[in-house]
Amino acid sequence: MIIREIRVTPVAFRDPPLLNAAGVHEPWALRTIVEVVAEDGLTGLGETYGDLGHLEKVRECAQALVGMDVHHTNRVYSRISSLVGDVVSDLHGLTGMSTKEKSIDRVYSPFEVAFLDIRGKAANVPVCDLLGGRVRDAVPYSAYLFYKWAAHPNGEPDRFGTALDPTGLVDQAALLIKEYGFRSIKLKGGVFPPEQEMAAIHALHEAFPGVPLRLDPNTAWTPETSIQVAEELGDVLQYLEDPCPEIPGMAETAQSLKSRNITTKLATNMCVVTPEHLPPAIASDAIQVLLLDHHYWGGLARSAQVAALCGTFGLDLSMHSNSHLGISLAAMTHLAAATPNLTYACDTHTPWQDGQDVVSPGTLRFVDGAVPVPSGAGLGVELDRDALAVMHEQYLRCGITSRDDTGYIRRFEPDFTVKRATW
Amino acid sequence: MIIREIRVTPVAFRDPPLLNAAGVHEPWALRTIVEVVAEDGLTGLGETYGDLGHLEKVRECAQALVGMDVHHTNRVYSRISSLVGDVVSDLHGLTGMSTKEKSIDRVYSPFEVAFLDIRGKAANVPVCDLLGGRVRDAVPYSAYLFYKWAAHPNGEPDRFGTALDPTGLVDQAALLIKEYGFRSIKLKGGVFPPEQEMAAIHALHEAFPGVPLRLDPNTAWTPETSIQVAEELGDVLQYLEDPCPEIPGMAETAQSLKSRNITTKLATNMCVVTPEHLPPAIASDAIQVLLLDHHYWGGLARSAQVAALCGTFGLDLSMHSNSHLGISLAAMTHLAAATPNLTYACDTHTPWQDGQDVVSPGTLRFVDGAVPVPSGAGLGVELDRDALAVMHEQYLRCGITSRDDTGYIRRFEPDFTVKRATW
Repeated sequence: MIIREIRVTPVAFRDPPLLNAAGVHEPWALRTIVEVVAEDGLTGLGETYGDLGHLEKVRECAQALVGMDVHHTNRVYSRISSLVGDVVSDLHGLTGMSTKEKSIDRVYSPFEVAFLDIRGKAANVPVCDLLGGRVRDAVPYSAYLFYKWAAHPNGEPDRFGTALDPTGLVDQAALLIKEYGFRSIKLKGGVFPPEQEMAAIHALHEAFPGVPLRLDPNTAWTPETSIQVAEELGDVLQYLEDPCPEIPGMAETAQSLKSRNITTKLATNMCVVTPEHLPPAIASDAIQVLLLDHHYWGGLARSAQVAALCGTFGLDLSMHSNSHLGISLAAMTHLAAATPNLTYACDTHTPWQDGQDVVSPGTLRFVDGAVPVPSGAGLGVELDRDALAVMHEQYLRCGITSRDDTGYIRRFEPDFTVKRATW
Repeated sequence: MIIREIRVTPVAFRDPPLLNAAGVHEPWALRTIVEVVAEDGLTGLGETYGDLGHLEKVRECAQALVGMDVHHTNRVYSRISSLVGDVVSDLHGLTGMSTKEKSIDRVYSPFEVAFLDIRGKAANVPVCDLLGGRVRDAVPYSAYLFYKWAAHPNGEPDRFGTALDPTGLVDQAALLIKEYGFRSIKLKGGVFPPEQEMAAIHALHEAFPGVPLRLDPNTAWTPETSIQVAEELGDVLQYLEDPCPEIPGMAETAQSLKSRNITTKLATNMCVVTPEHLPPAIASDAIQVLLLDHHYWGGLARSAQVAALCGTFGLDLSMHSNSHLGISLAAMTHLAAATPNLTYACDTHTPWQDGQDVVSPGTLRFVDGAVPVPSGAGLGVELDRDALAVMHEQYLRCGITSRDDTGYIRRFEPDFTVKRATW
């Protein structure tokens, strides 16, 4: 099935002022929408990062893939490898130094998802059926809490309110759980000293007894602090995500916890983000949970291979999220539905997009915190061309071309420093 | 695409008296042919071992899978897992103690191959296109040499002649290379003391300069002997396959070779044959080459996952073969064609079946030792129903229900003992 055309459209959508260890979300979040048109008129959708260096590489590859076959992913991957000659500038620094291998996987991903969308439509089966078929009919997601301001500086308050202390976070969790039915909670930490974030976890534990809780300080802590927090929070946490930087730091933390009979699992989407990280992380027993993300693990089939590898080595699986739209939510849901050993609720930023989307409404919905696997062929979502046009206009006008949480927060807090093994 | 019917047919075909560490091939080799019929009349083919315990489990599962969807391999795998309640008796002891996990993967494999055959036909693409697409248009195989008798006792001599010394093996290699164009050679060893088999390798090296050579004594040696042989043969060997038993023995051998700066790679299809073997083998650096075999690694997609894992951990890939027919050769060829890091010539027993097959002639052929990837949809091979009927009759009449190389050789050499760390 030959590729006739690939359209690449950058979009922007409003994003609340969500705080993290690197700064604060800017008023607009960027994504790139990929539409692949095959010879018989079937189209497939993919979604990826919107940062300019990445967008340009996706555009270049889109042109180079015309004439290839949607089944020939090995060849497509090779073609993209040859085009990603230089290192693509990294995406807001959360997954470590950029490498050629990481860039290839990231550029390849939206195309691969679109190819699977086309192949699913051609075979009249959902994408999950191209990945082994669903093992669950709906994919649970977690309530993804953020410390946040009431409004962007000089902006109107959003409807989510302020969350700069335990009470604000409990209110936020109550809102998200009421609207989406989430049954587990993740807190993005790394914003305040660990004592304050532990207090928030305790408050959430008290307010939502029995609901699994996770904390993700984005490597803001040292191994010593990570160990102390894990010891103090104990079974209150389902897992502790990226408490400190790099594989050796995580391994040190994990070994210390083990020697103290503390069973807290360490999870990551920062120190193990490309195949070459897996051998050293496994050899040093640095992590117990890997957060999959098809956007940087090279699409859905390669993510499924990583999932199989994790199963072989006894690593648990969860799923990572950046700000995203409905194409990605559909892809994440198909992948999670077809991955037997992905047993934790996945992360999603969906609530923070607050209804904005490039896909037509109705297909993706949350029932008791879980997204039923779309039943239509392929990804099961349709592009809303009017919404795409509006969001592309927003991209052109918003003035942002690459995510920069740190640069943005420094406009208001000039002395802000990224938290990395800071506490 | 719902499964309407699955037919399971055991077959037998004449097999020459090929010697190995466990004994000698019996006059008949057994296989099981699986035909899956889907709702729209599309059929898919699979091929697996013919040993009775295995055959019975395949038959039981075949009935249980009717009504399921050919895409839902996760569910099929679970169904088969629940049916393989007890340990299936092992297959001629070459891959270690039988376990439930191994049995599940072996029973699952022919069904999965047949499902891919159907899916390929429905999408009008070859099976390799469901595995990422071909990265090579033809798959190289090696000349698989065996020490052998001129004839089965009380039987007529076959056309391959005697091979019990270096001269016999060189003649055999010349015949296979002349007929198939092979460009690499594998010798099944473990039959004679290591000195004699080293002499054979040297003779082959002299007769076929520049042709890569491999030696596989099926764990007949101790680690000490393995090290001595590797040291003596040095660069004459492309790799040394299963010289001694078990992961610790292979690791001891590998470490000793490394400490002596001997670069001989150790390969296996005996000590790493199921996912649970991978972590200890990798942790101890016991092997450098894994021989894939979709018959016991759970079909083509799971083999592709293992291949990806090997790529991640820097293990090279080759491919293992047991006595097989054309359905398996097609499946092996599609898998190898779509596996970028499978860079060694694969093993095949095809020459020893000497034209006997259950698939219609014409699709599978050897050109310069390589099989061009069948271009038709699915596996690209058709069942020859007349041949199937004849070979099923042979199965019913041959009196063999499970492979037993050791029992067979003891009829003529009562004192024969299986070679295992013997030399």
